[in-house]
Amino acid sequence: MQIAVLLFDRMTALDAVGPYEVLSRLPGAETVLVAERTGPVRNEVGSLALLAEAALGDVTAPDVVVVPGGPGQAALMDPGPLHDWLRAVDARTSWTASVCTGSLLLAAAGLLTGRRATTHWLAADQLAPLEVVPVDQRVVFDGKYVTAAGVSAGIDMAFALAGRIAGETTAQAIQLGHEYAPRPPYTAGSPDTAPAAVVAALRSRRDSILR
Amino acid sequence: MQIAVLLFDRMTALDAVGPYEVLSRLPGAETVLVAERTGPVRNEVGSLALLAEAALGDVTAPDVVVVPGGPGQAALMDPGPLHDWLRAVDARTSWTASVCTGSLLLAAAGLLTGRRATTHWLAADQLAPLEVVPVDQRVVFDGKYVTAAGVSAGIDMAFALAGRIAGETTAQAIQLGHEYAPRPPYTAGSPDTAPAAVVAALRSRRDSILR
Repeated sequence: MQIAVLLFDRMTALDAVGPYEVLSRLPGAETVLVAERTGPVRNEVGSLALLAEAALGDVTAPDVVVVPGGPGQAALMDPGPLHDWLRAVDARTSWTASVCTGSLLLAAAGLLTGRRATTHWLAADQLAPLEVVPVDQRVVFDGKYVTAAGVSAGIDMAFALAGRIAGETTAQAIQLGHEYAPRPPYTAGSPDTAPAAVVAALRSRRDSILR
Repeated sequence: MQIAVLLFDRMTALDAVGPYEVLSRLPGAETVLVAERTGPVRNEVGSLALLAEAALGDVTAPDVVVVPGGPGQAALMDPGPLHDWLRAVDARTSWTASVCTGSLLLAAAGLLTGRRATTHWLAADQLAPLEVVPVDQRVVFDGKYVTAAGVSAGIDMAFALAGRIAGETTAQAIQLGHEYAPRPPYTAGSPDTAPAAVVAALRSRRDSILR
């Protein structure tokens, strides 16, 4: 079972590494970090680079593809090699997944047309113009398409996917191995629970966060 | 404020990237991934490499140091350049932090002697022989030393640390940006809540998980 995790310039690292960490532990999984070119791929902060060890053309038939989000997504919305690759591999995947604004890339490639999906809460209004039905849930399954909300939601998505792929017991074993019993010290992780001033502050910085 | 995140061969990537993702968003933070040598540093799965852009000798006075864990920890318990570096930078840090079995490295370097700390649940019995007081909590503060339990606990640790460094509102803003309102699909993230058979299975594979 090959699991391809896409990297791109100015991605959010945790969008990729969270699901990687879970899915790479599945029995029989071979995980590959893939980008337009091999070599270091830098995140939006600029101080972290992950190594892409395969180029798009090297990965032709993954069973699972995971598309992260991050500010770099905005520069990848026009037709091009990445969209071509997403469509080509999607034709044979068992699961096509995204985290955060990665769903906008899947949508731009035409893979989510008419489907239910989620994305980062600040980008939710970008789904409908791409002919996607926005769903305000942390993880959304629609057929073989699985989309997660912002950044850390990719971890929850990956555990849900691990359960579907390998069964509940295997997913639980990975969860226990990663001691994933989260206990955030604050309850500000959703616009529904964060202090109004914090929500307003992020909304006012929306463009710099998403781009 | 310089935040140094240590990388080493066969680390667990999420131990490093989880805290990085939170702490790198602190106002005024300059984050650096540091390892014994610059260049790619590979995780224990083998299919992920992060780029170390500084060698130990290049980072002499970070304000915060974060030490991840992972199976590679076991090979770093003897005195050597890493312990020397940890002691040298710790002399001037505001916060010295670890995730998972990273606390065993801090302990081996002599930095946790007599202090309260935590680690991955499967490694908890390794703390006392290193003269550390084991605490069964997800995040443990003892003075400027902050230790987190296994892998994903590093994210909770980083938010708690972000709050101490920059205040509650800033930590909440980062939490909302990362949409960190976790909702695991299973409740197996702790040996106290996981099915007994899953706990037993991991205990029986303990050596291969920790090394």
